[in-house]
Amino acid sequence: MTAPDEKPHHAGAMTTRVGAFAPATISNLGPGFDVLGLAITSPGDLVEAEWRDEPGVTILEVTGDSGLLPTDPSKNVAGVAAASVLAQLTDSTTAGGSPGCGVGIRVHKRMPLASGLGSSAASSVAGAMAVNELFVRPLSREQLLRHAMAGERAAAGSEHADNVCPSLLGGIKAIRSYRPLEFLDLPVPARLRLVVVHPHIQVETSYARAILRSHSFKIEAAVANLGNMAGFIVALHRDDIELLGRCIEDALAEPLRMPLIPGLPHVKQAAMEAGAAGCSISGSGPSVFALADSDAGARLVAEAMRDAFREAAALDSDAHVGPVNTFGARRID
Amino acid sequence: MTAPDEKPHHAGAMTTRVGAFAPATISNLGPGFDVLGLAITSPGDLVEAEWRDEPGVTILEVTGDSGLLPTDPSKNVAGVAAASVLAQLTDSTTAGGSPGCGVGIRVHKRMPLASGLGSSAASSVAGAMAVNELFVRPLSREQLLRHAMAGERAAAGSEHADNVCPSLLGGIKAIRSYRPLEFLDLPVPARLRLVVVHPHIQVETSYARAILRSHSFKIEAAVANLGNMAGFIVALHRDDIELLGRCIEDALAEPLRMPLIPGLPHVKQAAMEAGAAGCSISGSGPSVFALADSDAGARLVAEAMRDAFREAAALDSDAHVGPVNTFGARRID
Repeated sequence: MTAPDEKPHHAGAMTTRVGAFAPATISNLGPGFDVLGLAITSPGDLVEAEWRDEPGVTILEVTGDSGLLPTDPSKNVAGVAAASVLAQLTDSTTAGGSPGCGVGIRVHKRMPLASGLGSSAASSVAGAMAVNELFVRPLSREQLLRHAMAGERAAAGSEHADNVCPSLLGGIKAIRSYRPLEFLDLPVPARLRLVVVHPHIQVETSYARAILRSHSFKIEAAVANLGNMAGFIVALHRDDIELLGRCIEDALAEPLRMPLIPGLPHVKQAAMEAGAAGCSISGSGPSVFALADSDAGARLVAEAMRDAFREAAALDSDAHVGPVNTFGARRID
Repeated sequence: MTAPDEKPHHAGAMTTRVGAFAPATISNLGPGFDVLGLAITSPGDLVEAEWRDEPGVTILEVTGDSGLLPTDPSKNVAGVAAASVLAQLTDSTTAGGSPGCGVGIRVHKRMPLASGLGSSAASSVAGAMAVNELFVRPLSREQLLRHAMAGERAAAGSEHADNVCPSLLGGIKAIRSYRPLEFLDLPVPARLRLVVVHPHIQVETSYARAILRSHSFKIEAAVANLGNMAGFIVALHRDDIELLGRCIEDALAEPLRMPLIPGLPHVKQAAMEAGAAGCSISGSGPSVFALADSDAGARLVAEAMRDAFREAAALDSDAHVGPVNTFGARRID
């Protein structure tokens, strides 16, 4: 898929400051732990980049993080991704021009941390794209993937691509293989609507992953997810949202992570009773997503889920409703 | 998919003896342990059914089994499946006519036992279909599925449908869910050719399954298979045999079962060097299958695999080459 602005951007005057927005994502989608992810329309993170005289990447500002994120660029995911792009471009690029050999970035967090919505992936993607835009887009989106993954790796401590890939490229993606990295673009049913409800607690990704890494699974759990993975991919090709919803089951990660999200069984039940096609944990939680087949239906489901979080666990939450974001990250001027 | 002979068969004279042929199958296909299976064109099993005065099912004859199979109908998979159909039909059927209330069956094994090619599933399917045909087809093929699974369960000691379902219905099938049973019909690439090589050793299914049931898996093995399952289903929809072949990898069962098949690494390497798109164990082995995209290519791959079994493990083998059997089991007059 080629985005409308995909061709190199040649401003009349030299580019001195650009922004890039990268959307939130639902990863570990249903049966697809570390495999399935999709981009949503909002929220997301914005990173601005500008030329600096000092070499390397400097973080000039971080907003919206309540002071929680590191400003050392080697520890900040946007900084790591930005530095990875800069290193490649200052080695080899001939495109664009650079008054100095360094870049300053401003990271504007516009989504909650540790929410299960791919916050670190969005910052990584936006950081990588902002630097590439400052250089007048010498690299393709696909070429930015490994740079964004480098940022994500700094945050999660392990390599996964099911947030970064859809945040960068949009749509619904399956990571077929990590070594070598190979991803597949999946069909997006036009009627599909996503509901994401974020309760106001945090679940640390690294802790949620550690639970899984130390666990041993019986073959039956893998068989259950394999059957649902087959059905999920078939459903996308058949435009069958009912089947898609039946396949949003996860016998691997969800049983282990359910205790980390107070009220989850009630929230799932409320979503289904309100007409959702399926419902499960987004990423490593605490956000929970559901599938619907209309805007009106999705809004009903969102309200039912928020009510359930409040009633079952005394948790406030916010909700996002919308179609799959088929575009992915984009330049912001 | 409706088979050409799918409409009820009304012979002028009352049906007194019919046969049913059910094809061999490749189950546990690549990443799809207990989920993915397909039917091949040959070999397969034939079961004949005729009216008997004694109630219930009597096994009149078993051929081609070197005397290894039980003739007690409660222990023979074809007998169990036949009795399951008979019990339903003598309770409720109004179709056809029956001079007695019993059925005699003759089981003709035309494929090797314990070969990894779904021998017990083929006998179960043929047994179920033969009785249904004797009653002039009161049940649809889909309705025969649970009866054939009852036979298969008697053999394998556990319930799986990835042999029975494609043997009965043809094509490539994914078992999305076991409780409730739900299977999906997958697209069949027209150019796809299957190579099945059966080395002359036996692997007991129950033993091969026990190894898996007692094993604990790390999440990484499941992730690898989930990625390949996604790719496998995408490849079928895209008619992409190269991608399909890349997805024929199995990090769950194959590493544990490889020691049961002497020479397997050499056979896989030989298949790939001869141009196969992918290669793995069929069922629980010892048969090994490969994918190709032409008849000529498939024959080259088959020869290379047979040579490798001979050279690496001093094993004779036989090979079958052909397209997916999209028809499944069929009546034989």
